[in-house]
Amino acid sequence: MARQERGIRSRRLILEAAAHVFDERGYDAASTNEILARADLTRGALYHHFPSKEAIATALIEAHGQALVVPHQEVVLQAVIDLTLGFARQLQHDPILRASVRLAVEQSSFAPPTNTPYQQSITAIEDLLRRASQQGELLPGTNLPEVAQTIVGSFTGLQVMSQIYSDRQDLPERVSALWRLILPGLASPGILPRLRTTAPPPADDSRQDG
Amino acid sequence: MARQERGIRSRRLILEAAAHVFDERGYDAASTNEILARADLTRGALYHHFPSKEAIATALIEAHGQALVVPHQEVVLQAVIDLTLGFARQLQHDPILRASVRLAVEQSSFAPPTNTPYQQSITAIEDLLRRASQQGELLPGTNLPEVAQTIVGSFTGLQVMSQIYSDRQDLPERVSALWRLILPGLASPGILPRLRTTAPPPADDSRQDG
Repeated sequence: MARQERGIRSRRLILEAAAHVFDERGYDAASTNEILARADLTRGALYHHFPSKEAIATALIEAHGQALVVPHQEVVLQAVIDLTLGFARQLQHDPILRASVRLAVEQSSFAPPTNTPYQQSITAIEDLLRRASQQGELLPGTNLPEVAQTIVGSFTGLQVMSQIYSDRQDLPERVSALWRLILPGLASPGILPRLRTTAPPPADDSRQDG
Repeated sequence: MARQERGIRSRRLILEAAAHVFDERGYDAASTNEILARADLTRGALYHHFPSKEAIATALIEAHGQALVVPHQEVVLQAVIDLTLGFARQLQHDPILRASVRLAVEQSSFAPPTNTPYQQSITAIEDLLRRASQQGELLPGTNLPEVAQTIVGSFTGLQVMSQIYSDRQDLPERVSALWRLILPGLASPGILPRLRTTAPPPADDSRQDG
């Protein structure tokens, strides 16, 4: 394995180990010792990649943005719906994303810049809504920034509640329910019956490797 | 001051002191020593009221339910809107309610029974929606449990986001935005134009003493 590959691999190991520890303990109670033990790496290897616990948390928060995969859809509003459903599915399984959300939701001595990770999601959704609006998919007069903020805020709470009630197993269902409730006040009447509020079944040949 | 009054007063002192400490530090990092120092009471006085830190947290969570004040409104759906707006205002100022929400949202070694505090809010709103439906205020076919869960979940996330962006100063505005978005998919067309999505100005003679 070349030196660069080893570097990428050990960085990923640290992030995954840290994600588990942050997800279990929260930021303040997590220790770099525990992260090292879990990753089975030396302190030198850790500091080579991250100067501090805060730097690891910041890298995890950045993973949030990378998880925002915009699916291609002819109807742009469908892409917004599928973006949230895809994010919900990833939250069920991806330890890095789960930790990133816990870091974003909880108050701790780690203060992520306010523009991440909420702002990343808000901007991504607002851009899509603008395209949807230009294609005539939205009701006239829709306040795009307000709707984008409301969708991201509501999603945040649904995932908190879903975690408590079902360890996020019912999250996609809760996100579908949100869309059923808000679409009549958002989508133009011509588009409304064409929208699907549940996830499409995954294609057999699709692979979700990172 | 009679003995009973003193008891009520010291219980309230403990809850307020604990609320501040939990709100600042979260459950796990909060210590009963710090709560005692803040309340200026002895350990004996504390244990007279609460056998453990967990018992204090449970009492704070119960305060959630007491904050759900249903305003009287001829249009029941207006009462639901006003309930959420009133709760948003209280969250801006009431330390006990703020702590209760932090305990409910964050993962910690304190695990509140899953039926509180979300279930209290869901039940209160679902009951109101049922009355609203009986009065013909809702669109036919509205799934009452699903809508109640979606409103409570969305509110939860809006308050998390509002806390991060503005220390909850913009929370009532965010709750109004949620209602503007969901009402067209919830209220019957005859009721929709009669609904107010912002809080009425507080009456001069109203007092909110607990």
